[in-house]
Amino acid sequence: MDTVEVIKIGGKVAEDEDLLAKFLSDFLSGSQSKILVHGGGVAASELAKQIGLQVNMREGRRVTDADMLKVVTMVYGGLINKRIVARLQSLGGNALGLTGADLNIIKAKKRDPKPVDFGWVGDIINIHTDQLVSLLNAGIIPVLAPLTHDQSGNMLNTNADTIASEVAQALAAIHRVNLIFCFDQPGVLINGEVIQELDYQQYQRLKTDGIITDGMIPKLDLSFKALEAGVDEVRIKNALDLKSETAGTKLLSR
Amino acid sequence: MDTVEVIKIGGKVAEDEDLLAKFLSDFLSGSQSKILVHGGGVAASELAKQIGLQVNMREGRRVTDADMLKVVTMVYGGLINKRIVARLQSLGGNALGLTGADLNIIKAKKRDPKPVDFGWVGDIINIHTDQLVSLLNAGIIPVLAPLTHDQSGNMLNTNADTIASEVAQALAAIHRVNLIFCFDQPGVLINGEVIQELDYQQYQRLKTDGIITDGMIPKLDLSFKALEAGVDEVRIKNALDLKSETAGTKLLSR
Repeated sequence: MDTVEVIKIGGKVAEDEDLLAKFLSDFLSGSQSKILVHGGGVAASELAKQIGLQVNMREGRRVTDADMLKVVTMVYGGLINKRIVARLQSLGGNALGLTGADLNIIKAKKRDPKPVDFGWVGDIINIHTDQLVSLLNAGIIPVLAPLTHDQSGNMLNTNADTIASEVAQALAAIHRVNLIFCFDQPGVLINGEVIQELDYQQYQRLKTDGIITDGMIPKLDLSFKALEAGVDEVRIKNALDLKSETAGTKLLSR
Repeated sequence: MDTVEVIKIGGKVAEDEDLLAKFLSDFLSGSQSKILVHGGGVAASELAKQIGLQVNMREGRRVTDADMLKVVTMVYGGLINKRIVARLQSLGGNALGLTGADLNIIKAKKRDPKPVDFGWVGDIINIHTDQLVSLLNAGIIPVLAPLTHDQSGNMLNTNADTIASEVAQALAAIHRVNLIFCFDQPGVLINGEVIQELDYQQYQRLKTDGIITDGMIPKLDLSFKALEAGVDEVRIKNALDLKSETAGTKLLSR
């Protein structure tokens, strides 16, 4: 195994049948070992509303009470994960859907309720790297739902970007790793234009100047953290440009 | 690997926190290789009602239209499966939740819409026995949700008793296999009393006489089919009697 690609797709791709079909076909086209991490927030919020649960976001993250934990376990671990796995299998990819509880792949701890009580949200404490590597060596494609567990029998809701970055970092200790964050924009946008390369100093300046804001900030923080931890390449791009090696924004080490 | 135990639990155990805790602790107590198959129909019907879907049963089986397929994929593949996996991991069992799509473990075909159109319901065409055996050899506990796939990208709803019986039959070609159907009764009841042993001729007589009826008939048909296919022992018992080797009803070859 030379290079491992860790690719994250957001809910918008995972929840749109046509986009997903195009994406998964591109995803399988290369010969590298691959791990797919998916979101599913839009579908989770839809189901929550259907059953009369209020969706409560704080700092862009979902507050996850006991009922919301059931919703995300169903939507992320069931609906979205199995849709992707079944589609990949139909295209000849030997996919295996996993939450952090399965094979004890991702251990986490429930986040401290102070300063903000996010409920059943987990912060990663360990990635079971050996197990992931042995799946990859067996030609298996792990498909990771954004769920972890606390080793006391509880599932925990964990951000998909964070899982992708942490999995990439863990694997970087033993393999060459490319981390690709796919979303619905063509890359990191500066005044409406994609910036082809972005280094840490530029990022800090653009953040201070209020040009990079909101949801892009945690994604870039996770990107630079991954580079610092030895991930070889980190790129942010549109899910439909997956096959283009030059599309999107390449992050450069600080 | 000497003997493989294939154990099926119904929704009533899987959906009750206290019963499940007791059952899973017993489940892990022996040293044999184990596969757990679970149901979840009650929770699926509850979610369906919450989102305004009508539950439609025909001949004791769930009619599964596109919306109901989403419900069962969420409840069986997400909620119940991950609850069991997380609980087993907390007890030290290296559980891996699987639907038939994961690792292509169970291929099925959508049931012919005649004489009864059950919708997205799958009849098993193949169990990926080698893959199950290699998981067992690695000390992994497969936890199977009652879902299969059609290899064209669609999940299919498949009866959990059927999956347990078919998995036991497939493994019986290479291993000694015990199949245990757990449910909420102490065994096969004849006039309110558990019958300790039941052979095929007795079963046919009791069925003709209307003493064995309804839901017990498909379970017994699957039991005798498994014995005929080389499964070494088939037993029907209460989930809370799992550790007793003499509890419940033992089925005898015809």
